[in-house]
Amino acid sequence: MRLSRYFLPILKENPKEAEIVSHRLMLRAGMIRQQSAGIYSWLPLGLRVLNKIQRIVEEEQHRAGAVQLLMPTVQSADLWRESGRYEAYGKEMLRITDRHERDMLFGPTNEEMITDIFRSSVRSYKDLPLNLYHIQWKFRDEVRPRFGVMRGREFLMKDAYSFDLDQEKAVESYNRMFVAYLRTYRRMGLTAIPMRAETGPIGGDLSHEFIVLAETGESAVYCHSDFLEKDIPGNDVDFDGDLSAIVADWTSNYAATEDVVDMAEFEASVPEDKRISARGIEVGQTFYFGTKYSEPMGATVTGPDGKDVPVHMGSYGVGVSRLLGAIIEASHDENGIIWPASVAPFHVGLVNLKPGDALTDPVCEDLYAKMEAAGIEVLYDDTDQRAGAKFAAMDVIGLPYQVIAGPRGLKDGLLEVKDRKTGEKEMLSAEATLNKLTAALTV
Amino acid sequence: MRLSRYFLPILKENPKEAEIVSHRLMLRAGMIRQQSAGIYSWLPLGLRVLNKIQRIVEEEQHRAGAVQLLMPTVQSADLWRESGRYEAYGKEMLRITDRHERDMLFGPTNEEMITDIFRSSVRSYKDLPLNLYHIQWKFRDEVRPRFGVMRGREFLMKDAYSFDLDQEKAVESYNRMFVAYLRTYRRMGLTAIPMRAETGPIGGDLSHEFIVLAETGESAVYCHSDFLEKDIPGNDVDFDGDLSAIVADWTSNYAATEDVVDMAEFEASVPEDKRISARGIEVGQTFYFGTKYSEPMGATVTGPDGKDVPVHMGSYGVGVSRLLGAIIEASHDENGIIWPASVAPFHVGLVNLKPGDALTDPVCEDLYAKMEAAGIEVLYDDTDQRAGAKFAAMDVIGLPYQVIAGPRGLKDGLLEVKDRKTGEKEMLSAEATLNKLTAALTV
Repeated sequence: MRLSRYFLPILKENPKEAEIVSHRLMLRAGMIRQQSAGIYSWLPLGLRVLNKIQRIVEEEQHRAGAVQLLMPTVQSADLWRESGRYEAYGKEMLRITDRHERDMLFGPTNEEMITDIFRSSVRSYKDLPLNLYHIQWKFRDEVRPRFGVMRGREFLMKDAYSFDLDQEKAVESYNRMFVAYLRTYRRMGLTAIPMRAETGPIGGDLSHEFIVLAETGESAVYCHSDFLEKDIPGNDVDFDGDLSAIVADWTSNYAATEDVVDMAEFEASVPEDKRISARGIEVGQTFYFGTKYSEPMGATVTGPDGKDVPVHMGSYGVGVSRLLGAIIEASHDENGIIWPASVAPFHVGLVNLKPGDALTDPVCEDLYAKMEAAGIEVLYDDTDQRAGAKFAAMDVIGLPYQVIAGPRGLKDGLLEVKDRKTGEKEMLSAEATLNKLTAALTV
Repeated sequence: MRLSRYFLPILKENPKEAEIVSHRLMLRAGMIRQQSAGIYSWLPLGLRVLNKIQRIVEEEQHRAGAVQLLMPTVQSADLWRESGRYEAYGKEMLRITDRHERDMLFGPTNEEMITDIFRSSVRSYKDLPLNLYHIQWKFRDEVRPRFGVMRGREFLMKDAYSFDLDQEKAVESYNRMFVAYLRTYRRMGLTAIPMRAETGPIGGDLSHEFIVLAETGESAVYCHSDFLEKDIPGNDVDFDGDLSAIVADWTSNYAATEDVVDMAEFEASVPEDKRISARGIEVGQTFYFGTKYSEPMGATVTGPDGKDVPVHMGSYGVGVSRLLGAIIEASHDENGIIWPASVAPFHVGLVNLKPGDALTDPVCEDLYAKMEAAGIEVLYDDTDQRAGAKFAAMDVIGLPYQVIAGPRGLKDGLLEVKDRKTGEKEMLSAEATLNKLTAALTV
């Protein structure tokens, strides 16, 4: 993408309203724009990251056997009256009345609607296990939205819903999502620790919050430091096999949020030099809640014995839009964002220091074309801004590599290649630059 | 995808509520499910088609130079008060009051918000032309939603917005979208005819509706039959060049909807044997409306002469979710949908007539793996339903090819390969089947 044809409104000043670094950097990097309290437009650079995060979530959900559909944002209140949550949900639910005076709402979650879809078409235990998920905009009318996309009102969430014949099978479904989550977050460069959690308005007996440690996290967390060293299940993990050993391994050490922590237990079970007491950001939560929705809503299947039984359900959320904030909180420096390559909006920023120059133009054009042809995503700064502004903008937006083409270096046929994370710079020929970046960025 | 692990709730009976064939077939094929009047869930098969249509729209918008972002669904009423449309829009706007008693709305379109984004960051004519688009769920509270996704309340729309210094440049932007639209619809197997149109609540002087002819179309249309034979601009069309000759060619013959038709002009300008008087489905609309929004909202740039002038704008919609209905209206038979390969949910339906059989299982598994590895998307029916139900389901969902593996044919090493569109069947070896489908379905 040529910057001269792109829309990248970089802010030079730190926006006053932003209290935490991810919010500040997303505004400065021209990724988002607030439209109302807690409601954001995703500018082109932000949307690219959002889409990449979404793709990783989709790939791992698919790998774990979940099937994607898409439910609407606006729901009928009647469904929520069936489960008893319409009154219970309180002021966070955005309630709407349509032109025919029907009670509607902007969905904050979809347990009721997916249960309705299930009961309308699934009849037999032979169609189980079933795990249906979608990635859709939700709305929670937070009393005090803040921290940018970390606690917005309109937000993008992945929510999956599993249906099984009994608790034993439901726990197998739970384990598949648990393992998928470990893989999902790691692919974005994050270590998310599953912690015992309260079930809140979703309900149920078994629940984990997946927490990324960060100074600006919203809650205090307590866990064993071994979590930071644990291996993640690889590409070859068999989702048709028994995953209970992996889940047992990832839940054997103490980890709890402040809502449920038992300090005596924490101190008794974790040696002093292994205790982490920190702050954390919740990036996902898993629930097993049995027949809480299937019973009142009549979602039953005929079992092997010919009798109808309510299905056992779980739900599994990932905060897709919130993840941008979490990744930035975990990966930045004083100059801006440092994107892991897997979710970077572009892989390489190619900076032409003197557009119109007889040396820089042909080298940049040629390298730009060759990198794109090699599958490298390039943001090509072909604008006539001054060098300092170009460098600062590239650092703020945090692409993994910068390639700087200036008349001085090119007299010797050399470009400067900078690794955004380490800050290391080297002078390379155009060919060596292409080879290095192709090796680093493509499979 | 193995059907045994998928979610495809085929309806055997024709649903009573569906008045038109696309609505009927989308329900029967398990593509959508109504959640409230005019509000649908997109079941897995429907979502796959929706995503493919969206990708084509995105590719052609990108080719024409438009830059993608994403605006939220919920908007502040204050923005619409600036343009004067908040009161004017009437009951089709879904109005919402949040917990702090602020007036909000579920966006039916985004002229105001994109103008607000533009004015907040673009200052100079040097940053023009600019065309920003998004693909987002919209809501229009239709008094009588019907025809499934053709006239729903919550619907997916692509809307692009162009910004230029003056009318001449704005018409160039208009022409780029005009040509992009010709290409977009053709890639989905549709011939969309640009017709003179009323501008309605968007406003402006220059507008075309892109209309697909179909018996079940919502409005009467009148046009020259030459439109059905015209060439579409190819992959090599230069969006940086002058597109006015293409637009002139595509607007030289008479074409108008009933809202604006002048029958005397129609009959005077089109020879009798070339007159088409038919019904049509609107699948997109383009508008040039000058400074209608930029003036009241203060969206100005500094021109070459140093003076601030309001920008000239246009907007360009494509009814993404509605296109599924339009494509089905244009391409079906008495047995079901006939998808063009470009938007088909899967390319091939592989039917194992006897799962568990020593002949059919290994052939199907091997062919399934090889087709997927070749980039062919396969829905593999590995269920134990009876043959008749399997055939009927494959015809209803309308994948371009069916491959039938039965014990009888496989005694001679042969599979039946059926072309869904022509109905032609041939008996081929597994190797010949793979070669034929790879040649037909991959680039």
